Amino acid sequence: MGLATEVITTNQTSNVIRIALDAMGGDFAPQNEVQGAIAALKHFRHVGANVEIVFVGKEKDIRSALAQQDTGQESSGVNYSIVHADEVVTMDDDPTQAFRKKRNSSLFQGIQQHANGYVNAFVSAGNTGAVMSTATLVLGRIKGVSRPTIGTFLPTTGKLPVLLVDAGANVDSKAKHLYEFGVMGSIYCRQILNVEHPRVGLLNVGEEPTKGTEVALQAHELLSNGVLNFVGNVEGRDILIGAADVVVCDGFVGNIVLKFAESFLGFLKTRFRAFADKSLLNKLLMAAMKPVLSKALKDMDYQEYGGVPLLGVNGVVIIGHGKSTPLAIKNMILRAEEVVRKEVNKSIENALNPPTISTKEPQS
Amino acid sequence: MGLATEVITTNQTSNVIRIALDAMGGDFAPQNEVQGAIAALKHFRHVGANVEIVFVGKEKDIRSALAQQDTGQESSGVNYSIVHADEVVTMDDDPTQAFRKKRNSSLFQGIQQHANGYVNAFVSAGNTGAVMSTATLVLGRIKGVSRPTIGTFLPTTGKLPVLLVDAGANVDSKAKHLYEFGVMGSIYCRQILNVEHPRVGLLNVGEEPTKGTEVALQAHELLSNGVLNFVGNVEGRDILIGAADVVVCDGFVGNIVLKFAESFLGFLKTRFRAFADKSLLNKLLMAAMKPVLSKALKDMDYQEYGGVPLLGVNGVVIIGHGKSTPLAIKNMILRAEEVVRKEVNKSIENALNPPTISTKEPQS
Repeated sequence: MGLATEVITTNQTSNVIRIALDAMGGDFAPQNEVQGAIAALKHFRHVGANVEIVFVGKEKDIRSALAQQDTGQESSGVNYSIVHADEVVTMDDDPTQAFRKKRNSSLFQGIQQHANGYVNAFVSAGNTGAVMSTATLVLGRIKGVSRPTIGTFLPTTGKLPVLLVDAGANVDSKAKHLYEFGVMGSIYCRQILNVEHPRVGLLNVGEEPTKGTEVALQAHELLSNGVLNFVGNVEGRDILIGAADVVVCDGFVGNIVLKFAESFLGFLKTRFRAFADKSLLNKLLMAAMKPVLSKALKDMDYQEYGGVPLLGVNGVVIIGHGKSTPLAIKNMILRAEEVVRKEVNKSIENALNPPTISTKEPQS
Repeated sequence: MGLATEVITTNQTSNVIRIALDAMGGDFAPQNEVQGAIAALKHFRHVGANVEIVFVGKEKDIRSALAQQDTGQESSGVNYSIVHADEVVTMDDDPTQAFRKKRNSSLFQGIQQHANGYVNAFVSAGNTGAVMSTATLVLGRIKGVSRPTIGTFLPTTGKLPVLLVDAGANVDSKAKHLYEFGVMGSIYCRQILNVEHPRVGLLNVGEEPTKGTEVALQAHELLSNGVLNFVGNVEGRDILIGAADVVVCDGFVGNIVLKFAESFLGFLKTRFRAFADKSLLNKLLMAAMKPVLSKALKDMDYQEYGGVPLLGVNGVVIIGHGKSTPLAIKNMILRAEEVVRKEVNKSIENALNPPTISTKEPQS
């Protein structure tokens, strides 16, 4: 595939965690990617974690971006390498076509590095659908997982965000899939947000177990009888008040809720702008108010979260928004390291493959 | 059923529009109902419309609320009557139980007045599910309508609100139902909001026709081949920017989006309060900002809209939020009169029962 692998600086030990970064993924690649990665590496050096970043993408562009970075007073402990990849998957590329036709893309090659065992995780702010389908096809699924899923965080009025899962990876999910989303989301929430017994809610149109679609009714039963801390149905109004730590839904609903929520900040801004335009007094009031609004609504900006996990694939994959800032990229890399270190996938596999065989379904 | 019908003031002519009002429906009934109705009647008198309100509910309570109202310098042209009904359907009542067991409720009796032809419309701020199921069972459906539906308005950054339909009346809708929701929503939008060719969008997870659930794919095809001004799929982020005048979806998704949207204002308030609590300066800033925020976000308060239509039943039914203010009640009554006067139901029937056979089928 014409790879030009060249290790620039490494400090290889047996405990090193290697993270492949799709250097060409986001809208501001590779600048934001490189800047975020260097910030992450400095953080790892500071805390004494042995982590190496593998930049995957156009070598020349990556080097050029790296040249603009100050890697710190001494470069020891800031470990990165470059794997050259000629092609770039764009945001407009069809995921299936990207998988079939762009085998030398940074996206495909980064995931391939993971599948080969050369890296422990893959991070990308690129085409979400392409990352998802390529990762699923190349890495495979964790044993017991029917469909990998993407969770996303939304802010709440409480202390912690809520994990909405599935946020768009799967439409027409069956009850069994929703149950698995609940298990994966719960484990992620426990291990990453440190919530001991995450409250799992099923997104529905009413609190009563008799409410909702056929699939929702069946999922309610599965979740009630499972091992999760299931708090029952939650409604649309319960999401932002943090009535559950994990909100389970089909990707069709999750995607619509997520995109609707993301559009809200823009809606507010338009409204405030229209108000300001009405008079000079209004303009002055809004100007005075701007920093207040920014602070109060800071975490409504999805870029703050720095990536969401692709759960259920046989690997660690963190996906970020195309508009990811260097800070978001840094946070995605930190998150990837955490997911590797805490062995989230092992917990998912254990939870979905309990040692005793279920009495309900005979194994074939 | 023990009705005590007593006409207090009437000015009966052949052109009178009679509107039954569930006087016991809302959380502040009958005060808000009576206050709103009198305001509506004064409006009708002012514009020379011949409208009579039929209060349905506990006569004594209604009279007591009426006594507190100033019906204007002269009572001529302010027409109302009272139909006594002993029982009240509460917000917690199960819709099916309410229909079976509370036949002498203001809700049931008001709808019965409509079915009997004594009134032209029914307005309630009561139990939405109970109004919907009772109205559907007692009034029946318009010819060609498979499932009656509830639309709801959401604000947009544009000049007009968007009609989200279905907003929770039906879950597990089939493509055919979604098509009908589009037709009914489009007609309502044209006749009530005066949008000549309402843009109808299908709520989905992507713009491409190949996106979404099986039902969404089929609905996309039906809507593409129909008579509507179909603008294709719209995503969650497109709702608040007014990318369509009518957004069609299954009631499961619609209900979740609606309740999620309604919770935003509370979310903002909590955030602003938390910000204010941090320091005296913050408190002063927020206090100065409060009227600004109120003005800028005014129409995010669902109470401003004053009711939504139950579309597809063989009658005119307007449903309001339990917390409806007198202004909201007034607006619901005005809306009911408008829907009757503009013969919205006739348009729906014509649209769903076209006189000519589609040219795709061979002509006999």
